[in-house]
Amino acid sequence: MNIDKYNKRAKKINSLLCVGLDSDFQKIPKRFLKLKFPQFEFNKWIIKETNEYVSAYKPNSAFYEARGDKGILELKMTMDFLNKNYPDIFTILDAKRADIGNTNNGYVSAVFDYFGFDAVTLHPYLGKEALMPFLERKDKISIILCKTSNPGAGEFQDLKIEGHRHSGASKPLWQIVAEKVYKNWNKNKNCMLVVGATYPKEMKKVRSLVGDMTFLVPGVGVQGGDLEKVVKFGVNSEGLGLIINSSRGIIFASNPKEKVEKLFDEIKTYRGLS
Amino acid sequence: MNIDKYNKRAKKINSLLCVGLDSDFQKIPKRFLKLKFPQFEFNKWIIKETNEYVSAYKPNSAFYEARGDKGILELKMTMDFLNKNYPDIFTILDAKRADIGNTNNGYVSAVFDYFGFDAVTLHPYLGKEALMPFLERKDKISIILCKTSNPGAGEFQDLKIEGHRHSGASKPLWQIVAEKVYKNWNKNKNCMLVVGATYPKEMKKVRSLVGDMTFLVPGVGVQGGDLEKVVKFGVNSEGLGLIINSSRGIIFASNPKEKVEKLFDEIKTYRGLS
Repeated sequence: MNIDKYNKRAKKINSLLCVGLDSDFQKIPKRFLKLKFPQFEFNKWIIKETNEYVSAYKPNSAFYEARGDKGILELKMTMDFLNKNYPDIFTILDAKRADIGNTNNGYVSAVFDYFGFDAVTLHPYLGKEALMPFLERKDKISIILCKTSNPGAGEFQDLKIEGHRHSGASKPLWQIVAEKVYKNWNKNKNCMLVVGATYPKEMKKVRSLVGDMTFLVPGVGVQGGDLEKVVKFGVNSEGLGLIINSSRGIIFASNPKEKVEKLFDEIKTYRGLS
Repeated sequence: MNIDKYNKRAKKINSLLCVGLDSDFQKIPKRFLKLKFPQFEFNKWIIKETNEYVSAYKPNSAFYEARGDKGILELKMTMDFLNKNYPDIFTILDAKRADIGNTNNGYVSAVFDYFGFDAVTLHPYLGKEALMPFLERKDKISIILCKTSNPGAGEFQDLKIEGHRHSGASKPLWQIVAEKVYKNWNKNKNCMLVVGATYPKEMKKVRSLVGDMTFLVPGVGVQGGDLEKVVKFGVNSEGLGLIINSSRGIIFASNPKEKVEKLFDEIKTYRGLS
């Protein structure tokens, strides 16, 4: 099972760190633009600089789609490079998909079979029934958006859902998502949740609801999430349970290696490992 | 504005019909598989057979992504063909996207600038703040998922949201989405809603809430939506306001032209136009 892949790597190198390969063509260093496959060459460089500190890589599909078929090809090349050279590093396509069941088969083929990712991020809005083509893939991980990291996440996610007549208290929508995924969607033990680093209180609550389930945590770095609180509130009973992602803050730094090492050390310190 | 593009076409040919170009590589007729660009050639054939009855085309991105860069290229070729030969037909990429703001810029570039679509479907879960890169494109249409057509749509969409202390009554989540999009998101008059044909009661309610806003209506055909009720409950005060989509039921029929003509006639009958 692929959660084991992540945990094994995380234990081996003592890292809960994920680097987001959000390789925006407008922002990658100019020296790569002269090459035949600029996004791929940039990713290769970032991967070489950062892999020793990293348990997962997470390209965001949007930055490749923006370049049409060229971007898709370079994302595929990136995945082939990763799977060949770093087969023990967990890979996530941050694609935030979700359609009706029949259509999701197309996305399943794309993400898991064409590209060869271990995991994909998914919107919950259409419900479990629609997402079955993802959930049925026991060999792959479905990461459901629960509480996202953006400032306006609360518009729907914080809406209060009425309690049952008897059981009483109302709950925010993100809590209902967390509970449903934990209790009803996770039969194959292949679900994770997205919980933003910018909402540590909510992370604490979600951790109290879903046992040792793993969280993908965006929002550290440029978005300003509190890393110490993320680690404090987010780790599970095994001291794992977090995939802490930083994208722009690392890949567009003048020295990505220095940045990733610093973040790696910080996380270790907060985990009490150094 | 692009809603005018759709309305103009709909009035000109008296059609509220959209054909979904869900050109699943596993299902397209074998004769196309021998050609260099099978999905594109199939689409070209479908477009030639159906265009006289059609006000919109809606490819679903999943079926192209499943083939990686090849599928993306053939989707681009399809759009170039449509924009060149049928520039008055409205085009929707059914991609069901939504990420945080910075990332959505990538999707905006892909859907509107690279492919050249008029509209895109979007998940509401991250809120308006995240979707601003789409909403700010005054020349393009954002179609927000409200009540989707799948059997399990209600898992989250029907959850009851608590009323305010004073204003009282609770409302289902899909109603909150409809009201927010209508009142707060539609400043540029470039929003539409997805309302499934399989939920006619909900469609009636949404129509009562959002004035003349246009609905994209999936779920006719294979999914079993009730066309008569869709037209009865869904049309706006101008007798328009609906983009009624059929995908598999038309494109994989033994005679797509016959099927599309039949559906075109049925819709006209229910609209009292024939």
